[in-house]
Amino acid sequence: MLNKNNRILVESIKRLLRRGATTNLRKIVNKTHAADLSIVFRSLSVAKQLQLLEMIRDTEKKGILFSELDEDTFAALSNELELEDIVEVLEQMPSDDVADLIGRLPEEKSDAILERMKKEGSEEIEGLLKYDDDTAGGIMVTDFIAMPQDLTARKAIERIQTEYHDVEMPFYLYVVDEYGKLVGVCSLRQLVVVAPETPLKQFMTRDVFAVGTDVDQEEVANLVERYDILAVPVVDENHRLVGIVTVDDVIDIFREEATEDILKMAGLGEGYIETQNVFRSTRTRLPWLLASCAGGVMAFFIIGHFEGTLHRFAFLAAFIPVIMGMGGNIGTQSSTIVVRGLATGRLNIRDIWSVVGKELSVGLILGLVYGLLLGSVAQLQYSTVMLALAVCLAVVCSMSVAALVGSCVPMLLARINIDPAVATGPFVTTSIDIISVYFYFSIATRFLGI
Amino acid sequence: MLNKNNRILVESIKRLLRRGATTNLRKIVNKTHAADLSIVFRSLSVAKQLQLLEMIRDTEKKGILFSELDEDTFAALSNELELEDIVEVLEQMPSDDVADLIGRLPEEKSDAILERMKKEGSEEIEGLLKYDDDTAGGIMVTDFIAMPQDLTARKAIERIQTEYHDVEMPFYLYVVDEYGKLVGVCSLRQLVVVAPETPLKQFMTRDVFAVGTDVDQEEVANLVERYDILAVPVVDENHRLVGIVTVDDVIDIFREEATEDILKMAGLGEGYIETQNVFRSTRTRLPWLLASCAGGVMAFFIIGHFEGTLHRFAFLAAFIPVIMGMGGNIGTQSSTIVVRGLATGRLNIRDIWSVVGKELSVGLILGLVYGLLLGSVAQLQYSTVMLALAVCLAVVCSMSVAALVGSCVPMLLARINIDPAVATGPFVTTSIDIISVYFYFSIATRFLGI
Repeated sequence: MLNKNNRILVESIKRLLRRGATTNLRKIVNKTHAADLSIVFRSLSVAKQLQLLEMIRDTEKKGILFSELDEDTFAALSNELELEDIVEVLEQMPSDDVADLIGRLPEEKSDAILERMKKEGSEEIEGLLKYDDDTAGGIMVTDFIAMPQDLTARKAIERIQTEYHDVEMPFYLYVVDEYGKLVGVCSLRQLVVVAPETPLKQFMTRDVFAVGTDVDQEEVANLVERYDILAVPVVDENHRLVGIVTVDDVIDIFREEATEDILKMAGLGEGYIETQNVFRSTRTRLPWLLASCAGGVMAFFIIGHFEGTLHRFAFLAAFIPVIMGMGGNIGTQSSTIVVRGLATGRLNIRDIWSVVGKELSVGLILGLVYGLLLGSVAQLQYSTVMLALAVCLAVVCSMSVAALVGSCVPMLLARINIDPAVATGPFVTTSIDIISVYFYFSIATRFLGI
Repeated sequence: MLNKNNRILVESIKRLLRRGATTNLRKIVNKTHAADLSIVFRSLSVAKQLQLLEMIRDTEKKGILFSELDEDTFAALSNELELEDIVEVLEQMPSDDVADLIGRLPEEKSDAILERMKKEGSEEIEGLLKYDDDTAGGIMVTDFIAMPQDLTARKAIERIQTEYHDVEMPFYLYVVDEYGKLVGVCSLRQLVVVAPETPLKQFMTRDVFAVGTDVDQEEVANLVERYDILAVPVVDENHRLVGIVTVDDVIDIFREEATEDILKMAGLGEGYIETQNVFRSTRTRLPWLLASCAGGVMAFFIIGHFEGTLHRFAFLAAFIPVIMGMGGNIGTQSSTIVVRGLATGRLNIRDIWSVVGKELSVGLILGLVYGLLLGSVAQLQYSTVMLALAVCLAVVCSMSVAALVGSCVPMLLARINIDPAVATGPFVTTSIDIISVYFYFSIATRFLGI
């Protein structure tokens, strides 16, 4: 439904642009949500994008549009925009989104923008830029509601209405001591339910989840999901409240992390974007295939090593695809289970032996099932018992080793703090290919008595 | 960090249970968040679970614990619990979570529970049970704030404090007409900012996003993410407001859908759970491997068909793994890009020809690069120009066909409303294996002049 509507929108806007129907365009552009406009921008030339941008009356909307644009589209567009026009829009945006956008630009450009922006705002953004993109510090917003613990509920409500009326997502009121340290939290709902003269410290929750600025964004997202909270406070090394991560950003993190994991598992790196052109797409994918190519060349030399066997029994070659395929597929299953289990927190790296043991058992059982099946095929086709036995044993070995490698490697990588999703990519598949081929020919050579 | 803490918690609770240290256990259990207790429950026997459950004083906490438990764990536990104990807990839970829990139980059990529950509450839950689990109707909650449009802001605030003080997530106030039809929405913030005597209709937003009860949950989640809203109203066929889907449920949907896609892509079905025992895990994985096995057997017959060629040129076998591997890997890349692009809405099924065209070009270019590379390896090793040419051409064909199949199949499946993630699993890989092997031997037979 969403997709269809966007298609219609893109087409109408293109038609109106061709006709130069400025009045209608202006009407449509100002009525459409910025998130939808960002989709339209993706399929327009920069010149057309500038034309539409000028028609947007609401600067805040331009800001949302900027943060929704693809990295490439924004970079191209920002090259054509006047510095002061960019600054004007950025000044209306939440600080975390500004830091995010500026982080994507080349350094001279971002420095120039920061210089132009109002001193106060720019300091805040420079503060955010110093944190890593994917840590709590990098994704937090710095506008939150914080008040001293002796304030009464009535006073607190008054201050929210006067001082804090433009806080982006006012879910919680954080309570801080005289040094800015986080000591408690209360919900806005509690505020209206208690007697107006109750001081905050009497009804606030003292047991507050908080994360340090350097905590990984995935962990922050897990906290939000786990405890169904709407915002997580972020504190510095002295437990002073410096920002909050809100639920809307957490949704983006989950999407982002899931996409990253999926892309890495398919050997596409983490930065792959569908809108890349053919040349860039080729360049991104080339190195990942190199692993698979190198593995293939190794398998080539292994088979070459058994050329004598092959000369006598050419039919052995016919089983290479099925043995490689079975090993590869069960290996992918095992590593996917482990990688996703670790990502969602359902598996723990300390359970390594029970997980690997279970996968190995599954690999053995499935190996026996399919080994017997494929051994029977061999027997029916060639009526050579030793060949049938060799195929059966090769399938058992290949599938159990594949399950072992597929579950072990991501566990070990996670233990030494390397992202396990990378392991599910071509690396695991390729090593399983090599191992399978080696086992198969070794077993066959011995069984057929060469 | 989360993982480590949980580990410590699980171990301390097990130790205390062994020692029978009831006082300490009671203290720990009541201090720990229900979400964390659910992790502890996963590694305890049902008897121990019951022991801990009895110690929890807060019935609402028991409810959160119930909804956080794995399907298997909850089913086993509920078998041992008295019906009235279950009902007591369910009565304290939000209706969408109750419907979700009850939906997992066998029918006699769920009927008995529904009968016992208070008439009013149960009707609401039976209402929710009639919607599909993964539609807007199935995930919505029925407690929301709705008021008539002529009410003033002051009256609205009063009613929120009196009638609606236990609404789960009070982000928005929905405005309905005399028939219950949704006509507008305003945020709680707007309510405190306008003059107290302003009627709602004067400042409400009339342009409200709403979804029907039968809209797929993934689409609802996309709306929330796209427009950064905290709740989506759900309406019936007469545009009457019947519920809302809140942002906390959307996070769960994203997790769930991403996990489902990843599992399907690896050929694990959508319901795979890490906690399955070896036997169930084997049973879930067996049928998916059958596709790969059947494909392997087909490849076996294809190669058997070329046995004459193989007898004369046994070394041809040595290139099977690398040709299959390169095709398989680029095919996985292509289908992953398409599947994830469709899931996140960045690709549209109507763009099929441009997407497939691009993938085919990438496949051709990468095929040429690796074809030349592997052709050179063949030339260096065997000094047979025709063999080198055959390998090169086979790689080019295999990789471009793989990119074509990998991108085309999920697009076509999406078009006929079959989940494209299934296609990225063993099916695409296996067909690519077969095609690659066939091309390779046909080309080699022709080139080597047999």
